[in-house]
Amino acid sequence: MNRVATAGLPVKLHDIEQAAHTIARAVPHTPAHHSRTLSEIAGCEIFLKFENLHFTASFKERGALNKLSSLTDAERKRGIVACSAGNHAQGVAYHAGRLKIPATIVMPEGTPFNKVKHTRDFGATVELRGANFHEAVAAANVLVSERNLIMVHPFDDPKIIAGQGTLALEFLSQAPEIDTLVIPIGGGGLISGNSIAAKALRPDITIYGVQTKFYPSMYGAVKGEKVTCGGQSIAEGIAVKEPGHITRVIISALVSDILLVSEPEIERSIVTLLEVEKTVAEGAGAAAFAAVLANRKKFHGRKVGIVISGGNIDMRLLSNVILRELGREGRIQSLIIAIEDRPGFLAKVATIVSEAGGNILDVSHNRLFNNLSARSAELGMVIEARDVEHAGDIRKKLEQAGFAVR
Amino acid sequence: MNRVATAGLPVKLHDIEQAAHTIARAVPHTPAHHSRTLSEIAGCEIFLKFENLHFTASFKERGALNKLSSLTDAERKRGIVACSAGNHAQGVAYHAGRLKIPATIVMPEGTPFNKVKHTRDFGATVELRGANFHEAVAAANVLVSERNLIMVHPFDDPKIIAGQGTLALEFLSQAPEIDTLVIPIGGGGLISGNSIAAKALRPDITIYGVQTKFYPSMYGAVKGEKVTCGGQSIAEGIAVKEPGHITRVIISALVSDILLVSEPEIERSIVTLLEVEKTVAEGAGAAAFAAVLANRKKFHGRKVGIVISGGNIDMRLLSNVILRELGREGRIQSLIIAIEDRPGFLAKVATIVSEAGGNILDVSHNRLFNNLSARSAELGMVIEARDVEHAGDIRKKLEQAGFAVR
Repeated sequence: MNRVATAGLPVKLHDIEQAAHTIARAVPHTPAHHSRTLSEIAGCEIFLKFENLHFTASFKERGALNKLSSLTDAERKRGIVACSAGNHAQGVAYHAGRLKIPATIVMPEGTPFNKVKHTRDFGATVELRGANFHEAVAAANVLVSERNLIMVHPFDDPKIIAGQGTLALEFLSQAPEIDTLVIPIGGGGLISGNSIAAKALRPDITIYGVQTKFYPSMYGAVKGEKVTCGGQSIAEGIAVKEPGHITRVIISALVSDILLVSEPEIERSIVTLLEVEKTVAEGAGAAAFAAVLANRKKFHGRKVGIVISGGNIDMRLLSNVILRELGREGRIQSLIIAIEDRPGFLAKVATIVSEAGGNILDVSHNRLFNNLSARSAELGMVIEARDVEHAGDIRKKLEQAGFAVR
Repeated sequence: MNRVATAGLPVKLHDIEQAAHTIARAVPHTPAHHSRTLSEIAGCEIFLKFENLHFTASFKERGALNKLSSLTDAERKRGIVACSAGNHAQGVAYHAGRLKIPATIVMPEGTPFNKVKHTRDFGATVELRGANFHEAVAAANVLVSERNLIMVHPFDDPKIIAGQGTLALEFLSQAPEIDTLVIPIGGGGLISGNSIAAKALRPDITIYGVQTKFYPSMYGAVKGEKVTCGGQSIAEGIAVKEPGHITRVIISALVSDILLVSEPEIERSIVTLLEVEKTVAEGAGAAAFAAVLANRKKFHGRKVGIVISGGNIDMRLLSNVILRELGREGRIQSLIIAIEDRPGFLAKVATIVSEAGGNILDVSHNRLFNNLSARSAELGMVIEARDVEHAGDIRKKLEQAGFAVR
């Protein structure tokens, strides 16, 4: 299977081993470990690879440095260009800065200032071009010809793919018992490199890719299905409409299946990683664990290596994800209570809630729009309980006191 | 200094080395590393010890296991009792469960169900006693005599102190360049054990303790100052009113100073650790880095070892801390805008905000209580900007369009 599966592919194990040597000094190995608690939650043995702990907080440095290191002196002098508002931008800008290669990063207009600033701080020139990613890519291609720059593609490049593949070399030596790998897919660079390395070293390993239901582009390309891509996904890092051509071939050859995860599944995975592993994963970084949780039977009894590909998530978004998940778990509930519009009723309700051990987070009154009498009002209340049963208790106590609760 | 400083103290380096041997198989070494970005932020070299990555997410396992391992067979049969609703409870219950020692954990009534459940899941009996921690301790002491149990004190016990001290042995071998240690103080067990180990191995090392301004109990005890303790601190783990007696003596002998940090300083530290290090620290766990940020001059040019003592923070609290910090940074702002109470004004304001790149998080109308005319209203708007300058821009654009903004 080894020879057959990886023969003829544009990247070889040897390229990846060489990439590991190339990036060794400037990209420290990331930690990996078995998680007892996540294994219990998922019903299989879970091993985690913390790619969120790179200096720029994603795996992208591996490929970026391998590509930059492959440039000739003449090419380095010409300078490079990359199009990304995310992890690829950071990875390229950081290592180009280190290697003193002039770097231009094209980002779409309206990219949050923070991301622009981070990239500039590494010494790169940031050009804001185009209303969306598609237009920004076009603008970057114009710069390649206008300014004679070298394009550093985010995924469809053998040097990038070989660089990303160094992850599997590390992971399989840190956790040799792994028999299954689960890896997120955007353009497909990460899973391509890692599939080649892993299949070459362990022909029997099973590899699953993960995409979001909003952007099943590689899923469609590999299965020959027509799919639609679009929508605001929390997993920006893998919200890619156009999968790579090189990566598509590698994935078709080596990846067993591509699993699609929903937004709530990804959100739950982010919160679980935060609560149990004390680690911050971005949406794409939490997608692989989400896929395992959503496909328990498939993974039952397996020793599953999960790649947490990155940790760059906006803090307000993270705060929102936490609250939404608490709402889904029933720990935060929104109640609407019919009350008479006269003094004392809020106090009564608040007393019942607090005596039941609930915590009131928000209160609103609706006097205008309800089906009750003009002397009545609806009291909206957001309460926090210890868990979903406790929330039920609080509700029951209100009802026992004669309040109508919706 | 070595002999002089640690001579006569109730715990010796030898006890700590023996504790390291005792706990080696069941308490894996936690990671430690230099942080380039935090070093830049703090203006000194920062090394982090990730005690939040223990199985029960705090350092408490070290002392708990060392103490439990020291019990005779007869004592193990009698069983143990501990009083804690926090990390000590988890550490004791987990290792008692592993060693099959019957464990009773006393928690104050009203302890969140989650914490009770975690502790029961380890096989411990949880007794909810007393309205507060003080009363729970009294109840635990009653159990000691009534049921002939062995008390596992959270800090004032040489075996506990020796166990906690194993952290410094690891940390100084992982990061030998450290010349300063910053360690949170609740009852003082953690800093006591680590001060003895560190001073014995490196007589020139400087050790700082950290408490919150709300609970400066050890600060008061060591300096002979009268202090008041109280209030809701985010750093529950070090919100201790009665410092230990053994620990007090050790701290007086070995710790250079105790630094007091405010709640906002701790909150900011939690968010920085989350954003930069991708790691979840509880309040007490973030206190040491907060103290460095609040005392930059003191640490300038030093190689500072920071102990992130634990990572058990309620997710809703964490979400709140993030939002409060964004508010403090000016990224989230609450504006009050005077508008005329007729159709189109909200649309106008919302258009200006969105064209300026701001994101509207919440809107409220106040028609009743304002100093304007009855035809006017106040529009409350919570907006998110990219940063504080951007928030200023949005405000300016509203003012240029003729709106009065407060």
